[in-house]
Amino acid sequence: MTEDLLAEAENLSLFACSFAGYDHLPLSAFERRGVTVTNAAGVHASNAAEHAIGGLLALTRGLFDARRRQRNREWRNVRTDELAGGGVTVVGMGAIGEAICERLAPFDVDVTAVRHSPEKGGPADTVVGYDEVESAVVDASAVVLACPLTDTTRHLLDRALLKTLHPDAIVVNVARGGVVDTDALVASLRANHVGGAVLDVTDPEPLPTDHPLWTFENVLITPHNAGYTPDYHERLANLVAENVETAMASGEWTGLENQVLPKV
Amino acid sequence: MTEDLLAEAENLSLFACSFAGYDHLPLSAFERRGVTVTNAAGVHASNAAEHAIGGLLALTRGLFDARRRQRNREWRNVRTDELAGGGVTVVGMGAIGEAICERLAPFDVDVTAVRHSPEKGGPADTVVGYDEVESAVVDASAVVLACPLTDTTRHLLDRALLKTLHPDAIVVNVARGGVVDTDALVASLRANHVGGAVLDVTDPEPLPTDHPLWTFENVLITPHNAGYTPDYHERLANLVAENVETAMASGEWTGLENQVLPKV
Repeated sequence: MTEDLLAEAENLSLFACSFAGYDHLPLSAFERRGVTVTNAAGVHASNAAEHAIGGLLALTRGLFDARRRQRNREWRNVRTDELAGGGVTVVGMGAIGEAICERLAPFDVDVTAVRHSPEKGGPADTVVGYDEVESAVVDASAVVLACPLTDTTRHLLDRALLKTLHPDAIVVNVARGGVVDTDALVASLRANHVGGAVLDVTDPEPLPTDHPLWTFENVLITPHNAGYTPDYHERLANLVAENVETAMASGEWTGLENQVLPKV
Repeated sequence: MTEDLLAEAENLSLFACSFAGYDHLPLSAFERRGVTVTNAAGVHASNAAEHAIGGLLALTRGLFDARRRQRNREWRNVRTDELAGGGVTVVGMGAIGEAICERLAPFDVDVTAVRHSPEKGGPADTVVGYDEVESAVVDASAVVLACPLTDTTRHLLDRALLKTLHPDAIVVNVARGGVVDTDALVASLRANHVGGAVLDVTDPEPLPTDHPLWTFENVLITPHNAGYTPDYHERLANLVAENVETAMASGEWTGLENQVLPKV
């Protein structure tokens, strides 16, 4: 939503963002106008978690290589590995990050969570702050990005952090494309300094046709649809309807589910 | 191992099968000779479970369709679904079946287990016997086969049982090819009476080059490698070494880990 559109919406009380991430919204303009903003966190937590773990397992178990063999009708082993016994680091402990950690718990992996307020804990074996992100990823067999795009997380996975990863480590991004320095990731993939990537989001997005990221066999690209399921719109509608009911009953546009503004 | 080879192995005390399934072994000949037989159950439980769930999630989330789009550098949505809110039925509660159920537990799915002795329970929401397999699969969004091949389970997934499945249901077979009536599955796939299949095992195996199963976009075929990881041989060697140590210490080839014969 642009500031121009916001200026035209004179009677706006609630802006219900249909995504979890609201980095694209003019928050200070909303704040000045006293408009309540909610997001859709939680609506797509389970499917985004399934997408992230499905992509990670598919790369780990060599399923895309198997698929290539299948096209050639070749009954021949591909290289496979497993998550068990390794470590997975999940960056961001919003609804999606939590859902990913919860689902990884029985996979016999050591789960490390990175979040702004590590004192809040989380469903992980270890919870650390962003100041410890480097030591949190150094032994990981996978790093899953599920954080909002903020000044702290923009280009969090840059050349320096990519260099600390194990060369077999798989990067999963269901956050925002800008959390990764794309050029640095391409360089790491070319040099085999990273095991592979599952990218539901890219920077730029959509990914241009001539972009090198399309070409790697160990990269899965999905078009920012990790959060999508057939039930998405129904769940979103229910969330917004409940919030409108709450506000109508109380006469105030605060105390809502998933409230982003006014800050709680 | 053929009976001829067994006859030549005059001093054989222990036959340590390197698979979980021992349907190919001449068990009655071993029994007559008093040879102890062990299997490798548990050695590949975690990786077979990762393989089964990874394949299931990949089909559910449309990752192979996304991969096809990726080849064409198309940034365009594919059909995706999710496990959450649905039901998964796991047939067989050996080490692999249990590992699958345990890992599915946090995925917000209703897990039903089918086993010979349902009174033993298991890590599932519902546990039933093979006599109730039809009602156990009728509402499932996925049916995961992880049972041994026995007289009960041969062609368990036949034309009749396939017809009871939901047309979007995904069949996963990490058991033995013979648990599925292959011709019936091909017919169901052709008629869109089943949503897709993840087949690590087939009947016949290896799958002949001209077999129709190779050609379905909603079928993933892997060459009986769900149980494989880089750690496989080390874990197997440790298991056998421990059993030999136990037997040497006690002076008897019984009371071993994973003992198949003599029956315990």
